[in-house]
Amino acid sequence: MSQSTYDYDLFVIGAGSGGVRAARMSASHGAKVAVAEEHRVGGTCVIRGCVPKKLFVYASQFSEHFEDSVGFGWTVPQEPVFDWKTLIANKDKEIDRLNGIYIRNLNNSGVEIIDDRAVLKDQHTVHLVNENRDVTAKNILIAVGAWPNLPSIPGIEHAISSNEAFDLEELPKRVVVVGGGYIAVEFAGIFNGLGVETTLMYRGPLILRGFDQDLRRNLQEEIVKKGMNLRLESDIAAIEKQADGTLLLTLKGGETVTTDAVMYATGRLPNTASLGLETVGIETKANGAIPVDVYSKTSVDNIYAVGDVTDRANLTPIAIREGAAFAETVFNNTPMAVDHSNIPTAVFSQPEIGTVGLTEEQACEQVGANDVAIYKSTFRPMMNTLSGNEERTTMKIVVHESTDKVLGVHILGPHSGELIQAVGIAVTMGATKAQFDATVAVHPTAAEELVTMKEKYIPPAE
Amino acid sequence: MSQSTYDYDLFVIGAGSGGVRAARMSASHGAKVAVAEEHRVGGTCVIRGCVPKKLFVYASQFSEHFEDSVGFGWTVPQEPVFDWKTLIANKDKEIDRLNGIYIRNLNNSGVEIIDDRAVLKDQHTVHLVNENRDVTAKNILIAVGAWPNLPSIPGIEHAISSNEAFDLEELPKRVVVVGGGYIAVEFAGIFNGLGVETTLMYRGPLILRGFDQDLRRNLQEEIVKKGMNLRLESDIAAIEKQADGTLLLTLKGGETVTTDAVMYATGRLPNTASLGLETVGIETKANGAIPVDVYSKTSVDNIYAVGDVTDRANLTPIAIREGAAFAETVFNNTPMAVDHSNIPTAVFSQPEIGTVGLTEEQACEQVGANDVAIYKSTFRPMMNTLSGNEERTTMKIVVHESTDKVLGVHILGPHSGELIQAVGIAVTMGATKAQFDATVAVHPTAAEELVTMKEKYIPPAE
Repeated sequence: MSQSTYDYDLFVIGAGSGGVRAARMSASHGAKVAVAEEHRVGGTCVIRGCVPKKLFVYASQFSEHFEDSVGFGWTVPQEPVFDWKTLIANKDKEIDRLNGIYIRNLNNSGVEIIDDRAVLKDQHTVHLVNENRDVTAKNILIAVGAWPNLPSIPGIEHAISSNEAFDLEELPKRVVVVGGGYIAVEFAGIFNGLGVETTLMYRGPLILRGFDQDLRRNLQEEIVKKGMNLRLESDIAAIEKQADGTLLLTLKGGETVTTDAVMYATGRLPNTASLGLETVGIETKANGAIPVDVYSKTSVDNIYAVGDVTDRANLTPIAIREGAAFAETVFNNTPMAVDHSNIPTAVFSQPEIGTVGLTEEQACEQVGANDVAIYKSTFRPMMNTLSGNEERTTMKIVVHESTDKVLGVHILGPHSGELIQAVGIAVTMGATKAQFDATVAVHPTAAEELVTMKEKYIPPAE
Repeated sequence: MSQSTYDYDLFVIGAGSGGVRAARMSASHGAKVAVAEEHRVGGTCVIRGCVPKKLFVYASQFSEHFEDSVGFGWTVPQEPVFDWKTLIANKDKEIDRLNGIYIRNLNNSGVEIIDDRAVLKDQHTVHLVNENRDVTAKNILIAVGAWPNLPSIPGIEHAISSNEAFDLEELPKRVVVVGGGYIAVEFAGIFNGLGVETTLMYRGPLILRGFDQDLRRNLQEEIVKKGMNLRLESDIAAIEKQADGTLLLTLKGGETVTTDAVMYATGRLPNTASLGLETVGIETKANGAIPVDVYSKTSVDNIYAVGDVTDRANLTPIAIREGAAFAETVFNNTPMAVDHSNIPTAVFSQPEIGTVGLTEEQACEQVGANDVAIYKSTFRPMMNTLSGNEERTTMKIVVHESTDKVLGVHILGPHSGELIQAVGIAVTMGATKAQFDATVAVHPTAAEELVTMKEKYIPPAE
């Protein structure tokens, strides 16, 4: 491969989770690799996604820990105070540290890092915008991710997305988070836990479309219990900045709401605008996503795409797997496709969601409602027997009755992200309900509910 | 079965986890059942074991939550104070509630509850000690559990066991917890977290005998980091109560230690003394345990025993399974044995332990060290990147190299009891390491380490 007539064997556009993994693994297989990144190495996950988000979630949970402690005999004599700037500074330090690790790992793998925006010029040529020069590569991997998409309404310039939420100068007194997806739900929980008067505004009737209905309903109940203001079937028509600095929101129904900040989390779009895709003849889907085959190959033979830009399953571990599979396929002679089924995922809502496999609704659709058995339990976790915290945990198992196979597991409760990782192993293996039941309980845990649900759920008679 | 010439089809001695489950299930199969309990319905687990223990663990963890909050921007202006009496009162209320549920469930199942000590009189007769009357039963189930065992040393009357620890009048300023098993480790962690100057004293060189060595070593490191005083290869020869109320401990080496309380957790013995076993010809093992076959039957045909009194695997879920299997076998014509392998268990130490399957040492013994591959990782969980808490998490997978089968999983870290419950499903199913690896990661979690450990551990060269 060292005899290539190109500058590089592989040029990666975008140093996020997928691009970095692909770059490092391709280099380990002997390829000469460069990766271009216009922002910071690490991508959405590290710089403005999973990592800082979870740190914020931790921060926001302490208010509840303080309250929970009372039932266990603790007195916090003077109310704890929260300083946003300290959180931001400490978060930034951690992001810097991780960014440094990513850079070091790329360097150690022999990957050249180019701090520039790269656009396609032709099938083997990439133009570096700031440096204003071209480089050539035998293979090109597009891993530019996605970016928040805000609607075009009057005053939208006064709104922020999650990108800006990570670096707000000050924590607002009131915030309206717009959207019903996991990012909206997570941020609303963060703001609420940090003491911000929080409204979650969603145009639909039930948050978290695509998740299991029981979890959606129960999470809605829980967040309302925690004092969040939930406005369903509502949307903003216009935002107006008022003289006192507050924002006046006019809703589509005409009603007005005054707030200090508006955060949109109404979807993300693949970052493909002005990437030069038209110069190589790659046509994107309506939302800008790049179509690829199972090996992440685009319609152009030597150009591949992985991660959120392909809009398959927009998750860090999937981008990493796609990046690794790409390297195996192209540089290690081992064609490898990523299985996008049974992906365990977490939503760091409060309480947390962990979910894997089919929802009840999907299962009924795929195997027929008559062949689906539901096991579910909603209970107060042991911690809350003394804390008095009203939060309840839900665990639900969706079973294919005729084969006994567990089609999906859905959990709403503390640490369910951790839990679903391990449940995911069993479900990926094709576990049956009998195999769940054969597992000895660990007592006292919440998770033991997963292996002790004996009774099928029978819907109450109408 | 209603035509029995005996007073009862089944007489259960002991209303703990195993006895209650057996009683209720036998009754549900149509048997006429009584259960005698000399203390409180619920047994060790509910009254003086798992449940109050875990509530205490929760209580003791808040001190660390308060400290952890600082790195996330919180200030607790005045130090939180802990009131032991509030914890005890709230714990008692919860135990009363659970005790009530147990009683109600027994009543609803049609089981007669007899508040008395019962001893065997002959193969079909039980004597009720306080009521001073005899009752007869076709079948007898012994489920009397176990009881803390304290050594016979001078001054032992000044020491307590876990039983008394649950109801101490006051939290001592200093405590010495004697023992290296899970109860000693859990209580030492509770006292330490509640601000007691805590010494864990163990005669061996490494706590938690029988657990995986890496976990044992790493837990020792962690508890020392948390400020606990660890005295290994030490034991008490005598305890003397001094004029000021403090206790003077003379160690076997002659050294002396002054403390306010001594708690022994040096083992539990089956509760079989003066149970009348000799009258029916049942011989116990040296430690008092009742030998039983796979169906929990003693040497006497109609007398069975389940739970800690049989000293098989002394865990609540096992006692429950044994109780259920007994009912199936004897009253539902379905002989059922309990599988005592691959039992996932938790130790509510701080950090917590979750473990299932073989330790590295057991695996090497069973399949040969050359055929055992170890995957392990010790890392700082994400919470601690900002909290500055020095606690580290360990995850370890023991693999049978030639078959790729996962023989054991061992976790030291937050929520590992929850985690191991779900890992236990996969391990009980016979999961391979490849099946762990095929599972998509959930990011960011600690548990994703379980499915992303690619490199076998190579011990450093000597």
